[in-house]
Amino acid sequence: MQMLFRYNWMTREDWYRWCEDLDEEELLTKRIGGVGGILHTLFHIIDVEWSWIRILQGKPDFQENFKDYQCLQKIRELDAKFRIEVEQFVCEWDESMENRLFQETMPDGRVDTDTWGEVMRHVIAHEIHHIGQLSIWARELGRKPVSANLIGRGLASI
Amino acid sequence: MQMLFRYNWMTREDWYRWCEDLDEEELLTKRIGGVGGILHTLFHIIDVEWSWIRILQGKPDFQENFKDYQCLQKIRELDAKFRIEVEQFVCEWDESMENRLFQETMPDGRVDTDTWGEVMRHVIAHEIHHIGQLSIWARELGRKPVSANLIGRGLASI
Repeated sequence: MQMLFRYNWMTREDWYRWCEDLDEEELLTKRIGGVGGILHTLFHIIDVEWSWIRILQGKPDFQENFKDYQCLQKIRELDAKFRIEVEQFVCEWDESMENRLFQETMPDGRVDTDTWGEVMRHVIAHEIHHIGQLSIWARELGRKPVSANLIGRGLASI
Repeated sequence: MQMLFRYNWMTREDWYRWCEDLDEEELLTKRIGGVGGILHTLFHIIDVEWSWIRILQGKPDFQENFKDYQCLQKIRELDAKFRIEVEQFVCEWDESMENRLFQETMPDGRVDTDTWGEVMRHVIAHEIHHIGQLSIWARELGRKPVSANLIGRGLASI
């Protein structure tokens, strides 16, 4: 569990560095699919990660808007701010939390029940999915995307 | 670990069904990014998943070519064939395998060491990343992609 979060944080950092070579306009350009742009995707990833961690802890969720985070620097600052809490929660994760229940009332009134373990893996998969989208837009811009490899990053710290 | 593999198999099946509505030509069209096409991506995902499982077990790897799998039906058959072995390995996975070492000599002669736990998560992330790419191509085709949500699929079987 923790390893996949660390993988996500590491590749996200790689993407921030990748973004440094692009004009701000390219980072904000409206694109087809996903949430519709490079910076917007990074904002969405950190927003969703943080929001789920907040929700599991019963804390108020983030209500800010991408309109207020229209440059790489602001996205990185928001990420750094949120990371403290997210990292603490992930590091303190233990097996006993795996089957705790999270209940959500859907728009149609149906009550959906998931375990905390499902929610955490949802957050992991959510980021990897959106990063895969960035890799297509990168190639469409004629640029080499960040490597998605998990092996070779020393994540097991053996 | 097992939950993320089951998530991948489930979304992969959703994508096969999604593909049924497309012409074969669209499935084979060369696209920008990733491995360059929809069916080719699905072939690549099942090839890579199976290959890693084979490599960890010290068994010979798959050497076939996408040229021989140019339709959805053949891809599904290959997946079903490989799934038996992959599923058995994943289901029998236990914590004691986590830190076993896998060593690989890189093209530059350097020896890279990863744990089996890293390799398994690499396989998981690999598929989610490529599925994210499919979701962009889907929108470029004017079609709604398969949901990437992990929650709501009953994966925890509570």
